Amino acid sequence: MLPEWVYQECPGISAVHREAALARQAQLTKPTGALGRLEHIAIELAGLQQTERPRAARAPIIIFAGDHGIVAQGVSAYPQEVTIAMMTNFAAGRAAISVLARELGSTLEVVDAGTLAQSELPGVVTDKPRCGSRDFSVEAALEPAELAFAFECGRRAVLRAEAGRPDLLILGEMGIGNTTTSAAIASALLGANAEEVTGSGTGVDAAGRARKAHLIDAALARHGLTGASAERILCAVGGLEIAAICGAIIAATQRRIPVLIDGLIVSVAALASVRVNPSCQPFLLPSHQSAEQGHRLVLRALNVHPLVSLDLRLGEGSGAAIALPLVRLACALHNGMATFAQANVPDRPAG
Amino acid sequence: MLPEWVYQECPGISAVHREAALARQAQLTKPTGALGRLEHIAIELAGLQQTERPRAARAPIIIFAGDHGIVAQGVSAYPQEVTIAMMTNFAAGRAAISVLARELGSTLEVVDAGTLAQSELPGVVTDKPRCGSRDFSVEAALEPAELAFAFECGRRAVLRAEAGRPDLLILGEMGIGNTTTSAAIASALLGANAEEVTGSGTGVDAAGRARKAHLIDAALARHGLTGASAERILCAVGGLEIAAICGAIIAATQRRIPVLIDGLIVSVAALASVRVNPSCQPFLLPSHQSAEQGHRLVLRALNVHPLVSLDLRLGEGSGAAIALPLVRLACALHNGMATFAQANVPDRPAG
Repeated sequence: MLPEWVYQECPGISAVHREAALARQAQLTKPTGALGRLEHIAIELAGLQQTERPRAARAPIIIFAGDHGIVAQGVSAYPQEVTIAMMTNFAAGRAAISVLARELGSTLEVVDAGTLAQSELPGVVTDKPRCGSRDFSVEAALEPAELAFAFECGRRAVLRAEAGRPDLLILGEMGIGNTTTSAAIASALLGANAEEVTGSGTGVDAAGRARKAHLIDAALARHGLTGASAERILCAVGGLEIAAICGAIIAATQRRIPVLIDGLIVSVAALASVRVNPSCQPFLLPSHQSAEQGHRLVLRALNVHPLVSLDLRLGEGSGAAIALPLVRLACALHNGMATFAQANVPDRPAG
Repeated sequence: MLPEWVYQECPGISAVHREAALARQAQLTKPTGALGRLEHIAIELAGLQQTERPRAARAPIIIFAGDHGIVAQGVSAYPQEVTIAMMTNFAAGRAAISVLARELGSTLEVVDAGTLAQSELPGVVTDKPRCGSRDFSVEAALEPAELAFAFECGRRAVLRAEAGRPDLLILGEMGIGNTTTSAAIASALLGANAEEVTGSGTGVDAAGRARKAHLIDAALARHGLTGASAERILCAVGGLEIAAICGAIIAATQRRIPVLIDGLIVSVAALASVRVNPSCQPFLLPSHQSAEQGHRLVLRALNVHPLVSLDLRLGEGSGAAIALPLVRLACALHNGMATFAQANVPDRPAG
């Protein structure tokens, strides 16, 4: 149902470079392991990037935006027009992710992968098969051809970013209602009750949360998603920006570009990607643990251990962007520190 | 027993600026609270710096080094000459903290506050009352006049840094044996058993840890430190670099310069500082939770909640340096994002 490229194998980790990085860490002027998880990041990145000197300097950010038919059921605290208004805000350089991109020296591309916008917005790439997904509480959110289009949209964005020779990639999202869509996808992929994965999104109350969970459980039953493939789940209850992120993750990792995994929505897209093409898994790098319920479960299923836990629940790729400096410092330490021999510092006795 | 300036009150938090920052956060184009702890950092910093636009751009790093007589009891996995060798490594720009300082654009000053070095080292400020502390398992580590000198050493370093108009300050340490000294101070300040606060330092095994804890319990009993003042504790079982950090913390916070609190050793110095002069407490900002046992207890006593937990146990100020980008991004987001009104984004309905 999806294009053939989606199923092509990602390259493997370079064991030689990973081992060399591991050996280098043991020689740096610090007690073995004293840089904790920063050592692991540098070592893993070395294996993924096939180099002894891992890099995180060039980290473009791509945000995919989409609208969601399920909003008709009153699942969001914000009006639907916020999706379009925020795309404009991203492009104007005044949203959280715009500020972060500037501070980090990252490029920021905004892709309308399926919002309700009827015309092209300045500073936004429009690449969508339709305006918004359908209301999954009454019908399938996407046709198979629309899902395939969204995957291609993600791949096209990666191809544009590839020109800048990225060291890794940050993917973000915007879409009023997409915590509900994500919870539905996660619930179906994990075989979990909706209640376990449903959070308050951008601010609905306890009653609103219960309503979201009930809607999701009913929809999963209606679409008969028990044991369904990720492709079927994405058609039934997915969203266009989420499917575009799946396409971007798979296209990036096939090109040996690691992806820093953001909050709930991007993590759900990552989980769907791994179900579609398991070989992309090693290229998914941790960023943050969000305040959104369900994120923990999804990260666990991805075997991705977050670096920071700051109670973020914004989306936009902001959590991944905030973790980027830690990855950069991990690389700088790995590449820039002296070895015991170079610095003439006595190492601890061998035993 | 300490110089008079040590006891002078630090300035208070500006409630006006804190409130203004809080109000601004509520107007930025994001759901209220969606930036989690980054919002809190910006708001607290605004109150401390007396501004609506908090800053963390200029963050000089000062490392204080000292040697410890207790090393004669075999508490460290590394030979004592590593203290001096690492000072040279810091100054030569090849240690972890040197790499971090370069990446962060921070100045790095290395102060020999009491190592065994017999002569001045290139690139190191020598400012010490004696070479190394005494072995606290057999006698008091420091004379009162030596303790006072070390506090002055810390203050002098802050005065040098003040010329660069720092937004905040990062303090670090180096000293073979100083996890043992810190555990002894923490144990006495907290009234806890040494076992609760004693970790493996830079790598002693379980037997070594038990030995450290036993040495500390015996020393605390020998010096009769139950209920003793922080000043008495620092003389009995302290170290010169730790006392210098106390002086630096108090001198900085008296000048309204917040201090990012690093790992176990700097945190213990911070706790001693708060006991000596409680008014410095609000200016102690969180950085990381280290892998060193006892750090959690000390941070709890300081009411400082770490931002990251990356299993670091290096010291040198590296944990604070690694957290600095998060504080900088918190400021950038606070200062750089548009408000709902500016961006013409619909806010959520009022109720």
